[in-house]
Amino acid sequence: MGGPNKSLTRRDFLYRTAALGGSALLLNTMNAWGMGIASRVSAPPVLSGSGKGKKVLILGAGLAGMTAAFELGKLGYDCQVLEARSFAGGRCQTARKGFKLQELGGEVQECQFDAGHYINHGPWRIPMHHGSTLHYTRLFNVPLEVMVNDNDQAWIYLENGGPLAKQRLRPAQVKSDMRGHVAELLAKSVKNRQLDQQVNAADKELLLDYLANEGHLDAGDLRYKGRSGRGFRVNPGAGMQPGAGQASDPLGFGDLLASKVGKVYSAVQDFPMQNTMFQPVGGMDRIARAFEQRVGRRIRYGAEVQTLRQDAGKVTVTVKDTASGKLSAVSADYCLCTLPLSVLRMIDTDFSSRFKTAVQAVTYMPVGKIGLQMKRRFWEEDDQIYGGHILTDLKGINTISVPSSNWQQKKGVLLGYYNYMLDAIEVSALSPAERAEFALAAGQQIFPAYRDAYENAFSVAWHRVQYNLGGWAEWTEESRKAAYPLLHEGEGRVLLAGEHLSYLTGWQAGAIESAWQQIERIHARAQA
Amino acid sequence: MGGPNKSLTRRDFLYRTAALGGSALLLNTMNAWGMGIASRVSAPPVLSGSGKGKKVLILGAGLAGMTAAFELGKLGYDCQVLEARSFAGGRCQTARKGFKLQELGGEVQECQFDAGHYINHGPWRIPMHHGSTLHYTRLFNVPLEVMVNDNDQAWIYLENGGPLAKQRLRPAQVKSDMRGHVAELLAKSVKNRQLDQQVNAADKELLLDYLANEGHLDAGDLRYKGRSGRGFRVNPGAGMQPGAGQASDPLGFGDLLASKVGKVYSAVQDFPMQNTMFQPVGGMDRIARAFEQRVGRRIRYGAEVQTLRQDAGKVTVTVKDTASGKLSAVSADYCLCTLPLSVLRMIDTDFSSRFKTAVQAVTYMPVGKIGLQMKRRFWEEDDQIYGGHILTDLKGINTISVPSSNWQQKKGVLLGYYNYMLDAIEVSALSPAERAEFALAAGQQIFPAYRDAYENAFSVAWHRVQYNLGGWAEWTEESRKAAYPLLHEGEGRVLLAGEHLSYLTGWQAGAIESAWQQIERIHARAQA
Repeated sequence: MGGPNKSLTRRDFLYRTAALGGSALLLNTMNAWGMGIASRVSAPPVLSGSGKGKKVLILGAGLAGMTAAFELGKLGYDCQVLEARSFAGGRCQTARKGFKLQELGGEVQECQFDAGHYINHGPWRIPMHHGSTLHYTRLFNVPLEVMVNDNDQAWIYLENGGPLAKQRLRPAQVKSDMRGHVAELLAKSVKNRQLDQQVNAADKELLLDYLANEGHLDAGDLRYKGRSGRGFRVNPGAGMQPGAGQASDPLGFGDLLASKVGKVYSAVQDFPMQNTMFQPVGGMDRIARAFEQRVGRRIRYGAEVQTLRQDAGKVTVTVKDTASGKLSAVSADYCLCTLPLSVLRMIDTDFSSRFKTAVQAVTYMPVGKIGLQMKRRFWEEDDQIYGGHILTDLKGINTISVPSSNWQQKKGVLLGYYNYMLDAIEVSALSPAERAEFALAAGQQIFPAYRDAYENAFSVAWHRVQYNLGGWAEWTEESRKAAYPLLHEGEGRVLLAGEHLSYLTGWQAGAIESAWQQIERIHARAQA
Repeated sequence: MGGPNKSLTRRDFLYRTAALGGSALLLNTMNAWGMGIASRVSAPPVLSGSGKGKKVLILGAGLAGMTAAFELGKLGYDCQVLEARSFAGGRCQTARKGFKLQELGGEVQECQFDAGHYINHGPWRIPMHHGSTLHYTRLFNVPLEVMVNDNDQAWIYLENGGPLAKQRLRPAQVKSDMRGHVAELLAKSVKNRQLDQQVNAADKELLLDYLANEGHLDAGDLRYKGRSGRGFRVNPGAGMQPGAGQASDPLGFGDLLASKVGKVYSAVQDFPMQNTMFQPVGGMDRIARAFEQRVGRRIRYGAEVQTLRQDAGKVTVTVKDTASGKLSAVSADYCLCTLPLSVLRMIDTDFSSRFKTAVQAVTYMPVGKIGLQMKRRFWEEDDQIYGGHILTDLKGINTISVPSSNWQQKKGVLLGYYNYMLDAIEVSALSPAERAEFALAAGQQIFPAYRDAYENAFSVAWHRVQYNLGGWAEWTEESRKAAYPLLHEGEGRVLLAGEHLSYLTGWQAGAIESAWQQIERIHARAQA
């Protein structure tokens, strides 16, 4: 089958944005915040021996760096973590009231959300397959709640949807009707003996029985005529109201095919997108804070790495204090660099040119997100959409995602867009106010109450964030072959970790598992 | 199509238990705790005028009774609620430490769950379509959380599954593979021009494109060979582990058909079973408590109705105090009787014989549930099942449902069975200890850790619960015609409400909406 990797690239990227015709078609890997595949291990390596007397310098206090500090610390290593920001977590951030962000060349944004509301503008999902991330939420008692990632009652809205363009459709309608019509077509063909070559007599009855159930076909004429799953014309209730009104009329097969909306969904969710999806109660940065509580004393904040040198005995890093501008030097036996490659490539190092070329080989994804505070949860109140994603091909939007917290409360913060690549670059050129206006104009097409309910916004363009310069590493098949093994090996006393050194790029699990791998290697060398 | 009602009856009952061959096949309505259809209204009737000076006697402090007391109270009616139990809520109960239950002819069970753990042994789900229930959770600030009702990673386990019998299958595998094989069959037939009569040239390419996506078919040979959604042989991770291992091998089409497991699922979830499903944080009885806080002073507890009489001017009820055994009489202008018909039919009334016959016409569902406290959440830790239902045809079990609360904590209470009809009657004849043993023996077949992790149990058989005598009302087409209109009309100054007087039987929404309907009628008559 050419491996799911290749296939997934074509088919399943970004909520199947490909099917929507978005710019994501240009992408050539499948991993993203919101895509990717399951983690392989769910516990840190079991290491024996002691790290006492050995110093490890960790660059970056994101999840990879803090994982390493936590696990190496338990072995007795003397770890120091250098972090350019004033807080730990890396991309594991949550914007809530008072959170400040200044993108490169941009104005300072200060988040104005009401207390209790937030947007996870970095990673926002923890798939139940990601045993490594779940290892730490469990160990650190970070309370989780369900993040509704799949809601057949959310809207899909296609500007370019042929005969179904600019209509709000429920995924439940699309799935019911596509599968119903297809089941009808196949069932009739089987019944009419058109497929007798392929289907033997024994299987024939079983297949018809399956199709009748799958497509809710009429037992008499094998026709699909709607079903409760797509909704009723009038819902039943109490009193003399009949119990089951007629199912609403199906969308036509021809219209569905011409709209291509059926391609937005697939037989099952991709592995990492299946229920149950989690989020920490209160914001994704609860994970960062939980790590920070445990390794915070090892972290030096406002410490921007300027140069990195090594010799046979040690690694030396010069650090600029971001407050005073003063330079100082730090040495250690080993260095674990968890800086994004997009940042590392701009640091003055004495890596070999071969290694430097490898560091350059990986591109980083331009990504934008915006949180919009709404004074009324119109998606719940008016449309009965409780969590999940409104998928759309509206340019630069991709998804409007409504929150899986604060159910039924007065206000809510929704995700107004989640864009990538050229769209993200374009939108990121706007000022914060212009981005909000851009998001509102689009959302208004789907939700009549959108603009009236709007209160304030907080947006990020990760490719413009100083210490990230992109959302996540984007590997190509070529760079996986040429650069990845070198980077994974490290050079001399410097090893690398982070989501970029995994096959779970863009996921927190990738950062954690990569750290697990590299500390095992550091420990083996230190013990040797 | 004969209406979805009839079709649903056949097809969709009880997690498609019909497909599993359970005794639920005998049932002839679709409504249950866990089935049924959406509520029609989402706010109480807007009533003007005053009820001052009018007395309404409400029989039963379940959700219907308390809804009536709350809404009529706002209009100024003098409401008194008679409740035989020592607490309010009716079937809206939650068993947690200290909760006591003595079934008729049974021993007293006292729940031994650890603090923070519970089982909703009555209603346990609030579909997002049930605007009426959600009206009160919102109004009363009852915090909700997602109840995972759909988990493609949970097991399905069929004893009678032909070639796939006694295997733990993931729904994701079954759905991937059934839909994949079916898409392949249809795609090849279309490609081979076997369906040229039915599919025109323009639709042909669109259909092939859809099927390739739906079934994840190989672009070359149109074969289904597995997909990420069904899982990998080896999951990807960090380091040098390849990014996307091969998809695991699909189940064979013939085996799937012969097992009939594909029939357990369908194109979409039925309307009320779709995401997002809710539960109150801490237990379903939070709703009962919220009502009780507001109308509790109107409730007389331990008040068992003995007789009901009416004349042209008033209704009089004699009440036995369950503590003292003393009888007393209460009169009112109107009476709203929310007692289950199973209970009402045993009370001495002066209803006409026609009305009495109608009261007798409705059968009540025998239902059993058991909560099992497990000292370890093996379903999460060993099997990555976070919430949802393990579907099985193991006799008397139907579903093992794992909790959607206390994620990643040490212990958990799961639902060990949810049985109906003859199964429920059979199991209910066992002692509480024997029921636990029955549940453990079955669960052990699916989860190796089941019995070892078991700590204690709490079970209920609703048909043996004194003031319920059944789970919910079971209407037939005949009784809906003959009895329902009479009961809905009431007789004289007595009106009836409850889930049984709705087309949402077995749902809290049915009780609430029925109360809304009847208070509107009482108010109209009082104002006249």
